[in-house]
Amino acid sequence: MNTIDPNTHLTIGALIFPDMDQCDFTGPFEALSRVPNSTFLTIAKDTGPVRDLRGLRILPDLSIADAPQLDVLLVPGGHGQEALMHDEAILGFIRKQASHARYVFSVCTGALLCGAAGLLEGKRATTHWTAMDVLPYYGATPVNERVVIDGAMISAGGVTAGIDGSLVVVSLLRGVTVAEELQLYMAYDPQTPFTAGSPATAPVHVLIAVTERAEAITKQRMETGQRYRTRQHP
Amino acid sequence: MNTIDPNTHLTIGALIFPDMDQCDFTGPFEALSRVPNSTFLTIAKDTGPVRDLRGLRILPDLSIADAPQLDVLLVPGGHGQEALMHDEAILGFIRKQASHARYVFSVCTGALLCGAAGLLEGKRATTHWTAMDVLPYYGATPVNERVVIDGAMISAGGVTAGIDGSLVVVSLLRGVTVAEELQLYMAYDPQTPFTAGSPATAPVHVLIAVTERAEAITKQRMETGQRYRTRQHP
Repeated sequence: MNTIDPNTHLTIGALIFPDMDQCDFTGPFEALSRVPNSTFLTIAKDTGPVRDLRGLRILPDLSIADAPQLDVLLVPGGHGQEALMHDEAILGFIRKQASHARYVFSVCTGALLCGAAGLLEGKRATTHWTAMDVLPYYGATPVNERVVIDGAMISAGGVTAGIDGSLVVVSLLRGVTVAEELQLYMAYDPQTPFTAGSPATAPVHVLIAVTERAEAITKQRMETGQRYRTRQHP
Repeated sequence: MNTIDPNTHLTIGALIFPDMDQCDFTGPFEALSRVPNSTFLTIAKDTGPVRDLRGLRILPDLSIADAPQLDVLLVPGGHGQEALMHDEAILGFIRKQASHARYVFSVCTGALLCGAAGLLEGKRATTHWTAMDVLPYYGATPVNERVVIDGAMISAGGVTAGIDGSLVVVSLLRGVTVAEELQLYMAYDPQTPFTAGSPATAPVHVLIAVTERAEAITKQRMETGQRYRTRQHP
């Protein structure tokens, strides 16, 4: 694997936004903020506190206007992603960063934001399992894997898949040994107490309950995707 | 399993502090902030932003002085835990909460804070693998498991073990189905890209590197533990 010269300083940043799912961001932060010879920046539309879907308030380091070019842009998801799907300041930021970044790394429905910014055309990608059917509207081929690499676009599945994805990103940046060291530090040796973590393994009543709860946001995401497709390919 | 009446509102809170390891807190936040019929409070010594070990800044909801009695107290760890091991305001808060909470849930070296508050005497417990040998100073029996339940004291191992632990806590509070629903929502079906997540599975050079990097803080934690033991059993 060709990693980057360890003497090359890397700037890694995350776009955070209201009603995101904080774990899409904080999971990857754990590994990505510890990449040797790097700086991690938390970036938002402006510099006020950003409130996640469940009320966690995070202070960004910088506004999108003041952010430097990043080597890696992390784009988390969560319900709040929907409110940004026509926000040109945000989409333009993602697009501009993507044009020179080494990697764009989406977690969960952060992939849809990348899609709305035009980054998924012709790409293989993944997202939260409830939103997989939305990906084709953005020209992407949905891949039912936890982490998908397609050139400079790396996508991870729902929420906690970002942790797996972040270790993959670290290995691409600094090699497998560095990723393994971070995995050991993070004690990432999961022993899930239940086996309901994916639609394939969850009990049917659990799958039905969670799918139903996501119905409204899923419908909205589909409609947004349809509108995007119509605009691009009228 | 005897869970709590679903009509009983639960107050769940986390103590956060400077130089904590943010993922010890944000991992469990993901599930615990979604427990049905509950409120989640983020609590710190005072209400200014709390900066984690790697620079993530989180705004607490309340100071320890203003916090109500909690049903569950989450105590994360990280290097910053050491600075609080003689902080009577913090230890008194943990002790007071513990005396009426249904559960105290430590993640990573948050267990050592619980130890310093006197909660681990005669208990089975776990912590980050680098700190397992510190537990006996606090009267605890170290157990090499990812999540350890001993009465009202629940402890999880290093960093990401808090995610596993939080699902266990949810199941104790609201039953297995609710925990499974959250696991599915979080897509917690880990597929670790490498197998270095525990000392037992990490390559030797990785284990040596991470152990060496933790040497200074581990030594400090051992000395703090020794001093505690001497004070309690002179």
